[in-house]
Amino acid sequence: MKSYMDLSKDELEQLYAQLVQEYKEAKEKDLKLDMSRGKPAASQLDMQMDLMDTLDSAADYKTEDGTDCRNYGILDGIPEAKKLMADMMGVENPDNVVVCGNASLTIMYDTVSRCMTHGVLGSTPWSKLEKIKFLCPVPGYDRHFAITQHFGIEMITVPMTPEGPDMDMVEQLAGSDEAVKGIWCVPKYSNPQGYSYSDETVRRFAGMKTAAKDFRIFWDNAYVIHHLYEDEQAGLLDILGECEKAGNPDRVFEFASTSKVSFPGGGIAAIASSKANLDEMRKSLTIQTIGHDKINQLRHVRYFKDVEGMTEHMRKHAEIMRPKFEAVLKVLEEELGGVGIAQWTQPKGGYFISFEAMEGCAKKIVAKCKEAGVVLTGAGATFPYGLDPKDTNIRLAPTLPTPEELAAATDLFVLCVKLVSVEKLLGKNQ
Amino acid sequence: MKSYMDLSKDELEQLYAQLVQEYKEAKEKDLKLDMSRGKPAASQLDMQMDLMDTLDSAADYKTEDGTDCRNYGILDGIPEAKKLMADMMGVENPDNVVVCGNASLTIMYDTVSRCMTHGVLGSTPWSKLEKIKFLCPVPGYDRHFAITQHFGIEMITVPMTPEGPDMDMVEQLAGSDEAVKGIWCVPKYSNPQGYSYSDETVRRFAGMKTAAKDFRIFWDNAYVIHHLYEDEQAGLLDILGECEKAGNPDRVFEFASTSKVSFPGGGIAAIASSKANLDEMRKSLTIQTIGHDKINQLRHVRYFKDVEGMTEHMRKHAEIMRPKFEAVLKVLEEELGGVGIAQWTQPKGGYFISFEAMEGCAKKIVAKCKEAGVVLTGAGATFPYGLDPKDTNIRLAPTLPTPEELAAATDLFVLCVKLVSVEKLLGKNQ
Repeated sequence: MKSYMDLSKDELEQLYAQLVQEYKEAKEKDLKLDMSRGKPAASQLDMQMDLMDTLDSAADYKTEDGTDCRNYGILDGIPEAKKLMADMMGVENPDNVVVCGNASLTIMYDTVSRCMTHGVLGSTPWSKLEKIKFLCPVPGYDRHFAITQHFGIEMITVPMTPEGPDMDMVEQLAGSDEAVKGIWCVPKYSNPQGYSYSDETVRRFAGMKTAAKDFRIFWDNAYVIHHLYEDEQAGLLDILGECEKAGNPDRVFEFASTSKVSFPGGGIAAIASSKANLDEMRKSLTIQTIGHDKINQLRHVRYFKDVEGMTEHMRKHAEIMRPKFEAVLKVLEEELGGVGIAQWTQPKGGYFISFEAMEGCAKKIVAKCKEAGVVLTGAGATFPYGLDPKDTNIRLAPTLPTPEELAAATDLFVLCVKLVSVEKLLGKNQ
Repeated sequence: MKSYMDLSKDELEQLYAQLVQEYKEAKEKDLKLDMSRGKPAASQLDMQMDLMDTLDSAADYKTEDGTDCRNYGILDGIPEAKKLMADMMGVENPDNVVVCGNASLTIMYDTVSRCMTHGVLGSTPWSKLEKIKFLCPVPGYDRHFAITQHFGIEMITVPMTPEGPDMDMVEQLAGSDEAVKGIWCVPKYSNPQGYSYSDETVRRFAGMKTAAKDFRIFWDNAYVIHHLYEDEQAGLLDILGECEKAGNPDRVFEFASTSKVSFPGGGIAAIASSKANLDEMRKSLTIQTIGHDKINQLRHVRYFKDVEGMTEHMRKHAEIMRPKFEAVLKVLEEELGGVGIAQWTQPKGGYFISFEAMEGCAKKIVAKCKEAGVVLTGAGATFPYGLDPKDTNIRLAPTLPTPEELAAATDLFVLCVKLVSVEKLLGKNQ
């Protein structure tokens, strides 16, 4: 397709008139579609319904160490759930895992909150310090940024690359400024790009010098087994193991959950870290809770049995998700390939596609889509404070709609991209 | 029985020799019994096993407002669970309730934590203030005190009476000192006495003047439907309603859970408060979590149906618990009644009996019991910092052991009480 950059002003005006007409017609369709959030589709949820039959009134509720899951007891997860979650995360030793409640986001919030009120392994509580900063690879996950903003932590953006965050910049910032206490990472099939960190990136994270002794990596391994393709799976080095090898065993908090494996909100979540970090966490946990929902932990272990059972299960999810990603990517390629007004990622896993529009166009595109009945993630949401400085990034979430809905939504999306871009090229939308 | 106070020294010495012999024989029985914590017995848990059949793979997972409980969505509880928990707590409007995860303790911790980091309705975050104090009715619940201690909050003890905390003292302290920001209350079948607050106590709480604008009552209604007797049930005024009437609508955070109604760790928990307080909480919640376990909320609603279903269910629990309480009380009365060395409460609900030994004897009694194989709650645990200034209070938890075990454990307990008391009277244990 001819690049819009090569069109004459007349050609652009002609195209513009045509796009305006198409948009007018599209609005008349009265669409009501949602590509805004990374929610599994109902058809995915239907696939794990037999999870709900795993523990009935006749079941045995004893763990392998003899604990009755129906009563109080066990602070940091039943042993078999620790093993399952360790294997899922690729963490060697289940002792490095604590299994908690229904959401990893809650563990992340709690972890930051504890650092604020109690410090880290004896360091000054962060809330007592003049200034605290976190590094935020961008575009990234809005709910990470919301946590740091909530606690008044200053966020410094670091550009993402297909290999992970710009590590020169990470090393420079973390190495020189004692106020830099942490970084948010989604290391595999990142939100929103679907990038996976290279071995070199992981090793540099593990080995780098940090000015703050209590610097911590918040390693949100949200999509660790969420592959779209059997034969093109991203690998990821075990950051815990690498940190230990590098002599920085306490550097990382790793998080994962089954929210997109079993049921969002009805799953189990875990944190992995060094013994020292987890011991400190347990000291707090013993005050925060008498224990998490062991019945749900047992339910998950009995259903999936082991990590092979989980990955097998995720293949079924991939069969539903893959055609959706491909449908969106096909429309993008057919309609915007070579046109010179956009770029996008081609994820092999995770829940999102990251889309880059021309500068200053993302907000307008999202608004145009909304006006015509298609809800996208708010432009800017992928940046701290909701501020995308170039206003280019849009996160596409293809999982929730049906394939038919997706086709309609993506058609509208590319139409809006073209319309807003041509407006910009013609100087109409200043 | 003749009071030990009226015995001559010789009689006491003779008694002592006999008690020492009995204790020696008791130790030889090699008991291994636990009366330390308020855990339901396995026979109680067996009664709600069909809760686990309520939601199977064929069930409908839609809430009454059409939300699919298997997916993301709903921050503050499904509508029918809000209604159920409101009715359980005696709160008029379900809008004043947020249903959370599996434990009210976690909500309490979170609530204190949020006050520390973010203040209350615009007040200075408590962590930014020089000094924060909480009033702690004693004896009380160790895990409450652990939360306040964890956040470095100074605890001031207030004596309990059968009508509730000494309200003259509460009013004086809360009314005069701006650093006093809260009070811990277990208003019904209190832990450990089983006392229930009188209407006057509740009204004085609702209406009193507080020096701190952001003073909050932490109203842990843990035993709201946990009656032992059908015909002798404690009532409790709705503190939310009373606070509203008194012009202090934002004064209280109320907590409850089904931990001892369905399964400890596998239940659901809720907070009730004013709209302003809950709105502030929701602002935080939206950052802390994408939502709690709606499936478990739905499971509970479908099983209990309504609060009548719950209270009916609690009658079955009472049938198991009542004989246990009565067995302990019977032994106490037979062996220690009129002996003048101890007092104890006679609860009509809740999970505990509070026992008062002679001054300076509680720790020794607990140690003697332990030495002979019966574990009690640590002496001092019912006081802030674990310090019972007179060393008199012992919390008895009769629910977990079988009736046979309870008989053996209580026999040993009264023996230890006598032994340690006579030692004291003879001046042997200085």
